[in-house]
Amino acid sequence: MSTSVKYPSVNALTAPLVERLVADAEVLRLAVTQEAGGARMVDAGAGVRGSIEAGRRMAEICLGGLGTVTISPSGPVSSWPYSVVVHASDPVIACLGSQYAGWSLADETGDSGFFALGSGPGRAVAVVEDLYKELGYRDTAAKTALVLEAASGPPASVVAKVAEAAGLKPEDVTFIFAPTQSLAGSTQVVARVLEVALHKAHTVGFDLHKIVDGIGSAPLSPQHPDFIRAMGRTNDAIIYGGRVQLFVEADEADARQLAEQLPSTNSSDHGAPFAEIFARVNGDFYKIDGALFSPAEVIVTSVNTGKSFRGGRLMPELVEASFA
Amino acid sequence: MSTSVKYPSVNALTAPLVERLVADAEVLRLAVTQEAGGARMVDAGAGVRGSIEAGRRMAEICLGGLGTVTISPSGPVSSWPYSVVVHASDPVIACLGSQYAGWSLADETGDSGFFALGSGPGRAVAVVEDLYKELGYRDTAAKTALVLEAASGPPASVVAKVAEAAGLKPEDVTFIFAPTQSLAGSTQVVARVLEVALHKAHTVGFDLHKIVDGIGSAPLSPQHPDFIRAMGRTNDAIIYGGRVQLFVEADEADARQLAEQLPSTNSSDHGAPFAEIFARVNGDFYKIDGALFSPAEVIVTSVNTGKSFRGGRLMPELVEASFA
Amino acid sequence: MSTSVKYPSVNALTAPLVERLVADAEVLRLAVTQEAGGARMVDAGAGVRGSIEAGRRMAEICLGGLGTVTISPSGPVSSWPYSVVVHASDPVIACLGSQYAGWSLADETGDSGFFALGSGPGRAVAVVEDLYKELGYRDTAAKTALVLEAASGPPASVVAKVAEAAGLKPEDVTFIFAPTQSLAGSTQVVARVLEVALHKAHTVGFDLHKIVDGIGSAPLSPQHPDFIRAMGRTNDAIIYGGRVQLFVEADEADARQLAEQLPSTNSSDHGAPFAEIFARVNGDFYKIDGALFSPAEVIVTSVNTGKSFRGGRLMPELVEASFA
Repeated sequence: MSTSVKYPSVNALTAPLVERLVADAEVLRLAVTQEAGGARMVDAGAGVRGSIEAGRRMAEICLGGLGTVTISPSGPVSSWPYSVVVHASDPVIACLGSQYAGWSLADETGDSGFFALGSGPGRAVAVVEDLYKELGYRDTAAKTALVLEAASGPPASVVAKVAEAAGLKPEDVTFIFAPTQSLAGSTQVVARVLEVALHKAHTVGFDLHKIVDGIGSAPLSPQHPDFIRAMGRTNDAIIYGGRVQLFVEADEADARQLAEQLPSTNSSDHGAPFAEIFARVNGDFYKIDGALFSPAEVIVTSVNTGKSFRGGRLMPELVEASFA
Repeated sequence: MSTSVKYPSVNALTAPLVERLVADAEVLRLAVTQEAGGARMVDAGAGVRGSIEAGRRMAEICLGGLGTVTISPSGPVSSWPYSVVVHASDPVIACLGSQYAGWSLADETGDSGFFALGSGPGRAVAVVEDLYKELGYRDTAAKTALVLEAASGPPASVVAKVAEAAGLKPEDVTFIFAPTQSLAGSTQVVARVLEVALHKAHTVGFDLHKIVDGIGSAPLSPQHPDFIRAMGRTNDAIIYGGRVQLFVEADEADARQLAEQLPSTNSSDHGAPFAEIFARVNGDFYKIDGALFSPAEVIVTSVNTGKSFRGGRLMPELVEASFA
Repeated sequence: MSTSVKYPSVNALTAPLVERLVADAEVLRLAVTQEAGGARMVDAGAGVRGSIEAGRRMAEICLGGLGTVTISPSGPVSSWPYSVVVHASDPVIACLGSQYAGWSLADETGDSGFFALGSGPGRAVAVVEDLYKELGYRDTAAKTALVLEAASGPPASVVAKVAEAAGLKPEDVTFIFAPTQSLAGSTQVVARVLEVALHKAHTVGFDLHKIVDGIGSAPLSPQHPDFIRAMGRTNDAIIYGGRVQLFVEADEADARQLAEQLPSTNSSDHGAPFAEIFARVNGDFYKIDGALFSPAEVIVTSVNTGKSFRGGRLMPELVEASFA
């Protein structure tokens, strides 16, 4: 008898987490609704209060059940004592194969103007993104879930698009959504501190299959009712207060280069609070240097050679300015 | 189909936690006894050793299953590296509706001289305290539990009083008790760092329904065999070493005022170890300025405006003097 | 009805943890094999990648289900932000009765040259070590598990020896192994920070039954492909970066003496990276002063008197030199 090592199913792993989230709706202050023939909608912060704990659990669902998210009473910014910590044994599948908000869910057929980026295990079933070819990963599921950083659930046209791409009926899809401004929304976004490092590694062309473990942390950002400010804070938590350690099966030259290329300090936009940068480009997200979206400080440990390389630096004073 | 958001049942949530505590009696070094027709008694530190883990679990039971308590290797007092961390999604129901030791359990009909303050989910079933009118919360349960900071379980007369108030038979009530001097007792008291902030918010007249999330931490205080010194240390851990962040749906004036009023620094008794203050008033607890019972440092974040306000300050040197 | 307090069964407590480890083999990147009539082998880092999470779980299995192991984003060495934290309610049974790698598993009848030290709940069933007489502890089990810091599973001759000593069939024994160089291996070794304190307490003749609770932490050491360097780093994490707090039912003289005797600073070999010391003795492990194998800094709290005593000191610069 032998069990060979193969990729796990992020949907099989998250199905119980999604059901527990729904079962704990009262405790976590969520609203769960499902119209006949429609998807199940879990509002975690739009019309309801939600909670930091709901955001923590959304983040674990985003990670495909392959990682843990905890709130810890320590961190690099002494005046903001609480941090979000993320640990994933298989950060490539957890963060890129599931957590990355990479599925563009614009309402193309309807007139709702709805737009959100889909995150979580549903992406791995639909596999509409090119990224999956590079990952060599796809998942199957009888039911699936997507997490949205959004102020409402998607309209029927978007639900239909998702269900079709996943080969499922709408009623077998759960959408969990919370705006950036909410307790849950801000928490699940800060919990992307490890994911942005993985995405940056992908962008700079590092061989993803060499990344074998990862841990990250960033200060829990205080909520802000204004979307731009809220987005600014969650980004600043990562860009100026985030710390990631990656373990890679790579030689020293590659590990060193990754450590140099990863951190946000490489960006020409580095050095100002994110909301200010966003204003500078008149709100055109795509004019911001993509290199900015990564942790402040990284350690890359080559498990092949035992040598660790460092890059970037924390900027607690910018986190303080952003959170103030 | 729709699930509306309503208050959770602290008894439904804690029932499995209580059964697991009892099932793990050997591991946690507890003594569980039940006489015919009597309540179930869980001794967690009087005639038995108990454990820090037992105290941690008692604290989660106290919180009505609405929060988590963890031991973390960090904190503001560098010479005492381990802290107790409390996070509650619904701190009002968790801390005031369940954890607050607000039910006076004096032996009025018997002659035992027994006195303890009842904490935990049983309070929400009995609702004998005025506080519950303000909270607008009451719970029902077929079985319930109370946690006592006490050196023995209550006598039959007190058991009868509790059972009657809860509308239950004595055998459906579990009392979990540990003296302040014990591993479990000291741990579960330090885990009140968030609760004292909630109670103080109530005392200063802040609208409790505006408090939507909360996290707190305080150094794990070393045990002391003398009750006064043990009580002194658990109080000092909170009063001089406790940090709390509250998230409130309030405007800036209210959030600012709360941050100013909350911390222990407001008390005229602030500045001396608790045991010394206690001696100064000749052990008359009620002569101590009530404003002292709150965390050293607070952050109050207005989720309505995004602004955070701070109050108080940590006094690590007093924690060190108390714990030495 | 009454439940008296007695020693828990480390095998009953770990059986579900072992099954969950096996069930999560894909997630944790383990290889599970079982030949007919042979033991179940769980490779957590020799021919497979394994993971830090696998090491964390191996450590909890080692602790006999009596403790928790967590990864925390803080620690005494600021440039290595992640730590392994160990908490055991009954550190004597957890660490010495189960976790201590005390069972010498040399291949005496075969010619494989295999050698490893057995750790975990299987030791308490076999009780071949003298230590068990002093502990007054033995366990029974229908199935058991051993954890090995090793680059392969044991040969059939060693499996047979283990099965016979445990009074079980080979197929009822699970061996979980990972080399020191691997993610899982290094993690589970650093998680011995509390165990080495317990072992040192035993060596200096402290009455073990007086130790009632314990917490420890040490920096998560980066992996190294060379066995000597890998072993050096895991040891340095503990010897120069480990912190332990023990709670003892002892008088002040005994607690003070324990605090003085425990830390690694007592060793004549203290002060150099472990790999350097190992080279100095030409790789003869037994020429290294045994007093070196203990945490850098200890706090011993006498719960009898309330007084805490300290010994040793952290040497972050040595941890940095070792991990660099």
